[in-house]
Amino acid sequence: MELYLIRHGIAEEHQPGLKDEERSLTTEGRQKTEKVAQRLVKLGLKFDLILTSPLVRAQQTAEILIAAGLSSQLETSDHLSFEGDINSWLKDWLEPRKYTQKNQIALVGHEPCLSSWAEILLWGEAKDRLLLKKAGMIGIKLPDDASPLGRSQMFWLTPPKYLL
Amino acid sequence: MELYLIRHGIAEEHQPGLKDEERSLTTEGRQKTEKVAQRLVKLGLKFDLILTSPLVRAQQTAEILIAAGLSSQLETSDHLSFEGDINSWLKDWLEPRKYTQKNQIALVGHEPCLSSWAEILLWGEAKDRLLLKKAGMIGIKLPDDASPLGRSQMFWLTPPKYLL
Repeated sequence: MELYLIRHGIAEEHQPGLKDEERSLTTEGRQKTEKVAQRLVKLGLKFDLILTSPLVRAQQTAEILIAAGLSSQLETSDHLSFEGDINSWLKDWLEPRKYTQKNQIALVGHEPCLSSWAEILLWGEAKDRLLLKKAGMIGIKLPDDASPLGRSQMFWLTPPKYLL
Repeated sequence: MELYLIRHGIAEEHQPGLKDEERSLTTEGRQKTEKVAQRLVKLGLKFDLILTSPLVRAQQTAEILIAAGLSSQLETSDHLSFEGDINSWLKDWLEPRKYTQKNQIALVGHEPCLSSWAEILLWGEAKDRLLLKKAGMIGIKLPDDASPLGRSQMFWLTPPKYLL
């Protein structure tokens, strides 16, 4: 199966009285994410499901992807918030789902979590060697058998500027 | 500095009497590579130099990139043919050139050589975890100081279908 790791768009700055998890996308962040979503539609992308972090900026990013028609299914998972651990996500979320090699799932979340997950899938450990911009994405092909950890392959990594 | 590793386009099949190094791009391979080159121009890419493998299909790919206006400088290096070793290339080719962090160099070559070079730059060893299609490319940012081996970062990996 294919996993698409998508980082949320540009969000408002930290402010006194504004909880981090409540920060929203800025107007620019919203517009850029919409353009990226439209380009993904043009490229023929379609996800069986979009799974998002519960934080507002990720939820809003995921809703933009849904509104563009990239998927009709949206779920939220705490596994995708900052402290998310890929081993727990694989065991508690992915494995029970019985997805097949034909499935395409998008995960909307945060850095450095997403690029660490990608490196662990590819290489078995995270070394901060992938640059994932806001509204950028990583495409990873998971093996059909056995654990994907250290055995997956990357076919796509793009900043949003190459999708506008 | 930034390195762009570009795989040659689709080439004719192996045939009796046709040496591997003399295989040319097919009509489809030429057309697709031209479209990729045009898209790279639209995205604002520009290379200080395109360095290519001496094999015909790589040379032809590099010439298409030059014709599109992506660079005015073309060089050939045996380091980029099949048996090319990145340590030798760094020592014998790159280091004496004194490129700065502002430079952008494109390397046109073959698989599995290019994705192995990318993995060695990122993680220090090659494990076949990157999928680089014909006429696809990888973008890598080299650190400004010391050796890039195991210390570089990837900002782009794309198959040609997302550039057409």
